[in-house]
Amino acid sequence: MAKTAIQPTREQDYPEWYQQVIKAADLAENSPVRGCMVIKPWGYSLWENMQANLDKMFKATGHTNAYFPLFIPVSYLEKEAEHVEGFAKECAVVTHSKLELNSEGKLVPAAPLEEPLIVRPTSETIIGEMYSRWVQSYRDLPILVNQWANVVRWEMRTRLFLRTAEFLWQEGHTAHATKAEAEEETQKMLRVYETFAQDYMAMPVICGRKTEGEKFPGAVDTYCIEAMMQDRKALQAGTSHFLGQNFAKASNIKYLSEAGTQEYAWTTSWGVSTRLIGGMVMTHADDNGLILPPKLAPTHIVIVPILHNEDERENVVNYCQKLKAELSQKTYAGRELQVHVDMRDMRGGDKIWSWVKKGVPLRIEVGPRDIASDSLFVARRDEDKKNSIKRSEFVDKVADILQSIQDNLFARAKKYRDENMMEISSKEDFYKYFTPKNEKKPEIHGGFAIADYDGSAEVEDMLRKDLRVTVRCIPLDGGQPKGAKCIFTGNPAKYRAIFAKSY
Amino acid sequence: MAKTAIQPTREQDYPEWYQQVIKAADLAENSPVRGCMVIKPWGYSLWENMQANLDKMFKATGHTNAYFPLFIPVSYLEKEAEHVEGFAKECAVVTHSKLELNSEGKLVPAAPLEEPLIVRPTSETIIGEMYSRWVQSYRDLPILVNQWANVVRWEMRTRLFLRTAEFLWQEGHTAHATKAEAEEETQKMLRVYETFAQDYMAMPVICGRKTEGEKFPGAVDTYCIEAMMQDRKALQAGTSHFLGQNFAKASNIKYLSEAGTQEYAWTTSWGVSTRLIGGMVMTHADDNGLILPPKLAPTHIVIVPILHNEDERENVVNYCQKLKAELSQKTYAGRELQVHVDMRDMRGGDKIWSWVKKGVPLRIEVGPRDIASDSLFVARRDEDKKNSIKRSEFVDKVADILQSIQDNLFARAKKYRDENMMEISSKEDFYKYFTPKNEKKPEIHGGFAIADYDGSAEVEDMLRKDLRVTVRCIPLDGGQPKGAKCIFTGNPAKYRAIFAKSY
Repeated sequence: MAKTAIQPTREQDYPEWYQQVIKAADLAENSPVRGCMVIKPWGYSLWENMQANLDKMFKATGHTNAYFPLFIPVSYLEKEAEHVEGFAKECAVVTHSKLELNSEGKLVPAAPLEEPLIVRPTSETIIGEMYSRWVQSYRDLPILVNQWANVVRWEMRTRLFLRTAEFLWQEGHTAHATKAEAEEETQKMLRVYETFAQDYMAMPVICGRKTEGEKFPGAVDTYCIEAMMQDRKALQAGTSHFLGQNFAKASNIKYLSEAGTQEYAWTTSWGVSTRLIGGMVMTHADDNGLILPPKLAPTHIVIVPILHNEDERENVVNYCQKLKAELSQKTYAGRELQVHVDMRDMRGGDKIWSWVKKGVPLRIEVGPRDIASDSLFVARRDEDKKNSIKRSEFVDKVADILQSIQDNLFARAKKYRDENMMEISSKEDFYKYFTPKNEKKPEIHGGFAIADYDGSAEVEDMLRKDLRVTVRCIPLDGGQPKGAKCIFTGNPAKYRAIFAKSY
Repeated sequence: MAKTAIQPTREQDYPEWYQQVIKAADLAENSPVRGCMVIKPWGYSLWENMQANLDKMFKATGHTNAYFPLFIPVSYLEKEAEHVEGFAKECAVVTHSKLELNSEGKLVPAAPLEEPLIVRPTSETIIGEMYSRWVQSYRDLPILVNQWANVVRWEMRTRLFLRTAEFLWQEGHTAHATKAEAEEETQKMLRVYETFAQDYMAMPVICGRKTEGEKFPGAVDTYCIEAMMQDRKALQAGTSHFLGQNFAKASNIKYLSEAGTQEYAWTTSWGVSTRLIGGMVMTHADDNGLILPPKLAPTHIVIVPILHNEDERENVVNYCQKLKAELSQKTYAGRELQVHVDMRDMRGGDKIWSWVKKGVPLRIEVGPRDIASDSLFVARRDEDKKNSIKRSEFVDKVADILQSIQDNLFARAKKYRDENMMEISSKEDFYKYFTPKNEKKPEIHGGFAIADYDGSAEVEDMLRKDLRVTVRCIPLDGGQPKGAKCIFTGNPAKYRAIFAKSY
């Protein structure tokens, strides 16, 4: 077998492969600040493209952006009992407002705050407080606001993009006059996430509802999109919460109804984060590195001039620049084509591998012979072969080729997901499905199991303890039990759920 | 005199007028978190438009975005002596990583950190640490990176947009192989800020260099753009720092030169913040509220249907919607026209005033008579009159009209600035210039004074103490002394500087 650009391979050591893909693509790295990552330019460009597309979708559904404080007074967090339970145990606490030299000449915290502040882990409480000031009458509703921000959760075990102490995200927070309207909003935003994941990230997802034990602290219902990674673990890629009147009561968001009565508003919140980048890596990357869906790629096409000697340079470079100029006038998926000519002073082979590892969808190699034959040597990152194509044909068809890459990535990921999803009808089969076949590779296990169960916390606790498997969601499509009984307890079945190990 | 929409007027109480303009336009408000503001949707849209244009200019000059940690270990801050001096005395210090219930049932900080962290007030030290890892050889230079982020400085006296504990900004951080290249970068970005301020914000600025006492802690040279507000005070609207090798030495950013020697890199940093919004308000707003430069306005045109009775509604509303559709296909300054039809259920007069206060550049009122005469009643926010214009003429010329508003705002602000700038050649005249004519209105004073001085810290200290006046900058254009002597001390003159009271 040919040596791969990423060592180890997925097969050899999946978690380490993931770290190496990120490093080879120069997406991000750990910083000296515990649990905080640095998102490097290539990784941040991906985030910018995600942001731009999501933001358009949020605005198209009537939302505007705003910005709320980074800090939350501890007394606000306390207002919602489940919420404080969920977030107090790992948060960054600000206690002082200056540093002073002590008698040993060391800088130490000084000027203690009257009330400690925490760095927002999520903003329901502080935004709820503001909404309580903004809402007086039914005419002030709905409020449809989103915030792009950084948040902090003091996670003990971190992993680039998937789980970091600080991460970037968006959090939508809406308030409505009626329960039905808030529920509709929750579903609408879930579907926005589904569309974004599938149509932009080329990452198939299952829309579902979380169980009591897995929902957001303080929510009435948490909906999610769940994706399968290439180690067959699940990744929760986005959530949309119906908060009922819980936070409205905690923050006193009240309005005067048309009928003249004082009512509590109904609220929702929904978010996706830089975790999506991790999901994209683990959905598409291979043993040669990153593979980017064209709709989100910072660069669609890289052109590598191939020079055998110096006197070819001017001709080849000019040809490449002209080709770039021509391609840059084309658009794909509403964006001008981003084309880069790699003029670095290094070996052609090294250049080529660097772009393979960065996941650029299309690579064109141009040497004197290609120019002579008026053709281009084109490599699709999603396929293993290179083709010589007539220049004019390529230029004409470039948007179609990019769309075919986008479609291929989605189809391939969906096929993988569907092949690793199994309907299971006995506890024994279920346990067998999730028991590693090879003790040395505990990460190799079944995938997504679909099974009827009684909806009890006892079953969930047992599976978590025995197999480290959780209910990922009760799918919106197909969540009704097929059989009469829970496969674990024999009790009446309540749901048909998706079970998996997860990130 | 007619009653104005904003009370008090600028003349009556300038600082309070400022707060009221922001409130009436719904740009932002204070939050319950000390010193932290909430940027509301209308204010945040302005910031988004500023971001979009600045970001384009940064990318056009070769920069990419990245993201670095929110937290900075205290030991990093300590690496640069002036820097720690400048920022340690007002910063948010994180000391614990969880909250726990104490014996009285109160949530208190727990799990103390080994080393306290501060919330970034600026990121030279943490970014410098990362650059020291990224840079090995001259081939790794330059690094041209920008970050959009929130920062925290524990200011004691805050004012919406102008000075808040948390604010949003961008901070560019670059590293270069040579001094000349770093100096060129510093100047280049200063000019980007000048262009943005003048061409987009319609805010005239003076480019200059700060004195020793006013420069950024740790910089070799700080350059700035200074604008005049309508109370004739100066606002430092953006800064670009040449950091020499100070931070490269503190963070150990070293590279192997082409000649094979180990050298320290040369670095720069540059930033503008949400303070720009405050500057825009105070440059253009009048006693009826905000006035937005068309290039940054979230909405270019608002259409207000004028209905005298219900049976006119369908006809008028349809007409307005068609007009909106037609106008929305036009562009101005590279952006599709943003047109809004105000369908709110409220009195026409109240609608009109709400848009006046929000500063929308063009307002169109449409009633049955306008439809009958195929004309529109158009009001420019920058002028006091309304005109009836033929519909087709308006549609054809709308981009020109917007540009004429943009130009008018700039010309008006520049005229005001130039009229309130005076060359002064004696200490006595200088003191008279800055002494309020009316004791009850200490804010009314001269403006910008231009004078020769010896460049000494003593003169600066004296002026700060006696008049609360500072050297705003030594202008890049005209900073050479005109006379031989300092007007304050009679010593040899070193600079011709701009002096003013400031925000």
